[in-house]
Amino acid sequence: MQNRIATALGFANIAFVKYWGVRDAALNLALNDSISMNLSDATTVTTVEFGPLAEDTLAIDDQPANAAQTARVSRHLDHLRALAGVSLRARVVSRNSFPMGTGLASSAAGFAALTVAGAAALGLDLAERELSAVARLGSGSACRSVPGGFTRWHAGRDHASSYAETIAPPDYWDLRDVLAVVSTEHKAVGSAEGHTLAQTSPFLGARLADLPRRLARVQDALLARDLPMLGEELEAEAIALHVLAMTSRPSILYWEPATLEIMRLCPVWRAAGLLAYFTLDAGPNVHLICEAATVPGLLERLQALPSVQRVIVNGPAGPTHLLP
Amino acid sequence: MQNRIATALGFANIAFVKYWGVRDAALNLALNDSISMNLSDATTVTTVEFGPLAEDTLAIDDQPANAAQTARVSRHLDHLRALAGVSLRARVVSRNSFPMGTGLASSAAGFAALTVAGAAALGLDLAERELSAVARLGSGSACRSVPGGFTRWHAGRDHASSYAETIAPPDYWDLRDVLAVVSTEHKAVGSAEGHTLAQTSPFLGARLADLPRRLARVQDALLARDLPMLGEELEAEAIALHVLAMTSRPSILYWEPATLEIMRLCPVWRAAGLLAYFTLDAGPNVHLICEAATVPGLLERLQALPSVQRVIVNGPAGPTHLLP
Repeated sequence: MQNRIATALGFANIAFVKYWGVRDAALNLALNDSISMNLSDATTVTTVEFGPLAEDTLAIDDQPANAAQTARVSRHLDHLRALAGVSLRARVVSRNSFPMGTGLASSAAGFAALTVAGAAALGLDLAERELSAVARLGSGSACRSVPGGFTRWHAGRDHASSYAETIAPPDYWDLRDVLAVVSTEHKAVGSAEGHTLAQTSPFLGARLADLPRRLARVQDALLARDLPMLGEELEAEAIALHVLAMTSRPSILYWEPATLEIMRLCPVWRAAGLLAYFTLDAGPNVHLICEAATVPGLLERLQALPSVQRVIVNGPAGPTHLLP
Repeated sequence: MQNRIATALGFANIAFVKYWGVRDAALNLALNDSISMNLSDATTVTTVEFGPLAEDTLAIDDQPANAAQTARVSRHLDHLRALAGVSLRARVVSRNSFPMGTGLASSAAGFAALTVAGAAALGLDLAERELSAVARLGSGSACRSVPGGFTRWHAGRDHASSYAETIAPPDYWDLRDVLAVVSTEHKAVGSAEGHTLAQTSPFLGARLADLPRRLARVQDALLARDLPMLGEELEAEAIALHVLAMTSRPSILYWEPATLEIMRLCPVWRAAGLLAYFTLDAGPNVHLICEAATVPGLLERLQALPSVQRVIVNGPAGPTHLLP
């Protein structure tokens, strides 16, 4: 083992086709493939330093993490320790560029960075798809943040076959994700619970049956750089995700009035020439997908809405990677 | 023919299990049974006077109706004229106690009243179920407004078998429908178009498969006067209706920010002891179902919301009936 310390930069991602529902909650094996874009300006920087410590420690945004967060990171490091055949404990320091717990997939950027930094600190030489699969163990969607650009998570059948890979590099299409933050409160129902509750929705089967068509359309639209084709599927897919959440028992209503306000404004803005389409994660904040030239007009309209607290503009980002 | 003029009072209804999707658009044959409550304070009074007129005329709320509205009423009177074997034209005057076109089912009250008044004016002696079936030809949900109290529309197989009947009289359970009006704009997509678009939702099959269970639960809850059991199904059913609308192609988003605001407040109010459950028609206004004792507390909270334009409190109403 050469290095005992490493730092990695991970990107959050926005899913164009969503991950919702687990086949195996212990391994985070998804019910379906998903497709996403890494986000340039929603990042986590994580340093992992193994050493002669009594226990793993974790600081997030300069604060000691709580016991549940620390235990979750510790369990994740166990996977890497098992691969390296060591039992050293680690000090983990993580900083996010964006608020946690708001459907901004902070766990995706975080577990991607933790995996890449932890593996490097232990001197593990893992292929990208292996890093992706390990990241998935920490948080399902984290596997999509390991490779760069536009990525597809193959649901797979087991741990080794469930990983993400790039379907188009970040410079393939100069898309923007204009994220309108309408709430930074922690979600009442976390994604992990939501994934389990998905099984209680009477609409899960219909969604899964429709997904092969949607995945093909989204991938084709990406490769053809066809925004209207992509956008039509994006909006329908965002609604389908929330349909599953709303119709699970108990029902999960992630939308806030401001979420709906922006969803309803999208077609109005398109009619006025601003070609942007909404998508949503499992939370109230709205991601508007558009090309770079559309951003100034969108910003003007979003900043005029009292319910929008903050706007973050993301381009497509590369893979989660080590920092010097 | 003894009387050539008659006046009827029709009640709107709020569906506890919704009508969404038609099997036969010409006959308004529904895909599924539905259950509703007649609304005491959302009424239409319609006078039909047959005579030696050149054409049918229609006035709504003291204004001459437009050509499409008049033609629709004229086609409806044709069914009654055919039954009576006459060709007389009619002057129809209709007044609503509530705004039209806002998902308040003005067409249900209107076509129930038109059917009952028109049949009486022509001296037709029709049984309640025949009146209900004829009302259905004008507007599907109008069939539920013909019998009194809590009614069930049997989807049926053909015209004669598709009618509504009372499952509990109005005094069986002193429920209230507290209607929060958040918009009185006409809907961008009318119910007729929505019923046709329902076929394009990938979730229609799953909804129909789940409905026998829901219909049984709602009917059981009504007969047991079990509000929590009824309310759980009410909210899930309201969401399911809008799921079909949102996931049809094109997507229909009837909800407004204020709709969602009230939907989200419902569980908060319940936690504070106000046992009320939301339901929605195909529109943005929110119906809160509760018992009479809960109304004052609800009114206080609703009237504090700037987005609520008006509140209408309804109790269960009797059948559509003739006025002297």
